[in-house]
Amino acid sequence: MDLDQLKKSFRTVSDFPKKGITFRDITTVVKNPECMNFIIEELYEKYRDKGITKVVGIESRGFIFAPVIAYKLNAGFVPMRKKSKLPAEVYEQEYEKEYGTDTIAVHKDAISDKDTVLLHDDFLATGGTMTAACKLLKKIGVGKIYINFISEITDLGGREKLKEFGEVESLIRF
Amino acid sequence: MDLDQLKKSFRTVSDFPKKGITFRDITTVVKNPECMNFIIEELYEKYRDKGITKVVGIESRGFIFAPVIAYKLNAGFVPMRKKSKLPAEVYEQEYEKEYGTDTIAVHKDAISDKDTVLLHDDFLATGGTMTAACKLLKKIGVGKIYINFISEITDLGGREKLKEFGEVESLIRF
Repeated sequence: MDLDQLKKSFRTVSDFPKKGITFRDITTVVKNPECMNFIIEELYEKYRDKGITKVVGIESRGFIFAPVIAYKLNAGFVPMRKKSKLPAEVYEQEYEKEYGTDTIAVHKDAISDKDTVLLHDDFLATGGTMTAACKLLKKIGVGKIYINFISEITDLGGREKLKEFGEVESLIRF
Repeated sequence: MDLDQLKKSFRTVSDFPKKGITFRDITTVVKNPECMNFIIEELYEKYRDKGITKVVGIESRGFIFAPVIAYKLNAGFVPMRKKSKLPAEVYEQEYEKEYGTDTIAVHKDAISDKDTVLLHDDFLATGGTMTAACKLLKKIGVGKIYINFISEITDLGGREKLKEFGEVESLIRF
């Protein structure tokens, strides 16, 4: 397995979730244990020496790899989700979507300004949700943030928006 | 760490998501690497000798542990989610909720009748979603199914409903 084979394992679906969008489907990747192992080892090597204490996964595809990375790094896993899905007190951050706004949240007792955080989602497109996630961590006072995706689309400017918050990494570029 | 300490790590929230429901919050568990490691080792020991080829996680809290278990067992991970979230051809199963019905789905190319499947969700209450998940796997022709939860409420009859589909296991009982 190498990055090129991994890239070929993604299924490409046209016009999903709507017309004009080319969707990169990770389900064909994760059903293959060889791909899973390769991704996890790559991520472990990338972040093993960074002193990461919390791995934050963004709902819901970010939940697939964030807990595995947390496990490998001996860090805690923290889900970032819609406020209504979290039962205790939260910090929250609103962000704009194509139509209207949305809000992401994280439990107040899950992260502190002493944590070094790896923020993970599976896919970077415009970076709207991840920008909100970074702003939320900055509001909490987190000093050091690493931003990770399994794959990214390079021509939508997502990476440029995120650079100011921390080091941005992805394994695969479309 | 032992099962008793693990149980105490869950946060109990009254009247969430609505009045009369006692919610067992797993976020206080997964933010603690010691709890994460303990759960993963317990699950690995439970299923290492079962010949499991696919671990199916039910959206979205089932995505937290299913991929880690898949990784440890060298099996594939398969997400089971709402049909609209999956981009390719699916098998689907409708089920009744308190008000109206819902449908869960799985990609047609993700599971076959040759797989031995571990079905995982974080929490068993009435078992409505998991029953639908089992029916869906039976429809595909999967012969051997293992059903796993991190925790369960024992007085809602969920386990009884699921027994006919496969061996039901959980780590913690409330």
